[in-house]
Amino acid sequence: MPNPTAAMIVIGDEILSGRTRDSNMHHLAGELSRHGIDLCEARVVSDRPEAIVAAVNALRQAHTHVFTSGGIGPTHDDITADCIAEALGLPIGIRDDARAILQAHYDRSGLELNAARLRMARIPEGATLIENPVSAAPGFSVGNVHVMAGVPSIFQAMLAGILPTLTGGAPLLSQSYRIARGEGEIAGPLGELAKAFPGLSIGSYPFQRDGVHGANIVIRGPEATEVDAAMTRLAALFPQ
Amino acid sequence: MPNPTAAMIVIGDEILSGRTRDSNMHHLAGELSRHGIDLCEARVVSDRPEAIVAAVNALRQAHTHVFTSGGIGPTHDDITADCIAEALGLPIGIRDDARAILQAHYDRSGLELNAARLRMARIPEGATLIENPVSAAPGFSVGNVHVMAGVPSIFQAMLAGILPTLTGGAPLLSQSYRIARGEGEIAGPLGELAKAFPGLSIGSYPFQRDGVHGANIVIRGPEATEVDAAMTRLAALFPQ
Repeated sequence: MPNPTAAMIVIGDEILSGRTRDSNMHHLAGELSRHGIDLCEARVVSDRPEAIVAAVNALRQAHTHVFTSGGIGPTHDDITADCIAEALGLPIGIRDDARAILQAHYDRSGLELNAARLRMARIPEGATLIENPVSAAPGFSVGNVHVMAGVPSIFQAMLAGILPTLTGGAPLLSQSYRIARGEGEIAGPLGELAKAFPGLSIGSYPFQRDGVHGANIVIRGPEATEVDAAMTRLAALFPQ
Repeated sequence: MPNPTAAMIVIGDEILSGRTRDSNMHHLAGELSRHGIDLCEARVVSDRPEAIVAAVNALRQAHTHVFTSGGIGPTHDDITADCIAEALGLPIGIRDDARAILQAHYDRSGLELNAARLRMARIPEGATLIENPVSAAPGFSVGNVHVMAGVPSIFQAMLAGILPTLTGGAPLLSQSYRIARGEGEIAGPLGELAKAFPGLSIGSYPFQRDGVHGANIVIRGPEATEVDAAMTRLAALFPQ
């Protein structure tokens, strides 16, 4: 059975303007690989509702899971929850259990649960909350869309919470092999190897270090015996 | 006149598997901001031809410019040039000027311009070459699509070469203001400020450092007087 597939939507003008460098995509990619879910596409979209809604609807129909990061805080530019509700055609309002989580958190901190903070309890109907052990305000899963915070420490904590609840496939096994020759030297035999193992993904990633041109060859696939067989052939082609 | 818009396509399984962390998107975002071109969307797609062709066709019709990174080397997984030709319905073949650039480069290095390396001279018909001062193999612009290498040093050099040839708009001016109070405290007045200045983008980016919750407020817009006016109001709302 093929692995479940996933897409990611990173929401935020600050990424597209170059102000902030996203790190959630790289983290998600690694975690999903280990869990046997294939991340097939990622998009960074701006804080405009049309952009968010269009991306959610395009990707949730094409993949087993969609993960979003960003836009679920208390300020005016935090519009993700409303956009998700719009994309899925669901009502949205303040939910009692989410409000209770926030109330308890702010009571502990001696802060007021004001109107802005209460916005973080707005959750589309039928969603399941995702725990936020860092700053309380929850994320949520609705349908196959998992909505998480943009702050990396919170994104990571939320993902760690939901990933075990999602069915994974076979983790992709990966082996790499460093060849101290330019890609142009090795491309011919490498292409033949890729043809001989159509079930594997064989990637070549060039590097240049201390004047040496080389390439890291990464062989990936679900079956250890097949990955091993291809790696043995590769090592024979380019002995070290 | 509104600024020209742009989209980026990062091509490569290695990003989606979590093996490699992309850095070209962040670099492009900053350079385009300074040049007055608005980066509106970025996508990371896998090395599958259908994925690349679909992304190119969706984005080149929606934006003034599309920039791609990755997949233009000599190995079997370098399929970007062929996918661009397919997306635009153009013939593709080895071009004499690109071949001459490669021939001169490999002659200097004492290496053979073999079949794999010659693939890097495959250029869609009607394209303009983009110079590669690092390793010779050129990128190209065809229609409104600019095709560049994935290796960051080469991507940056290629972008530096073409950016001055592209018409920019007004660079977005940006000022930021640090507030040592949680977003929930400031969200109300901040939302009012955003309503009062609909022509500006006012973003709130929370941080937590040494136990202090705060937010960096970033005000961006094309007009210095308007950005200044909003910043003055912001500072009056939250004196330091």
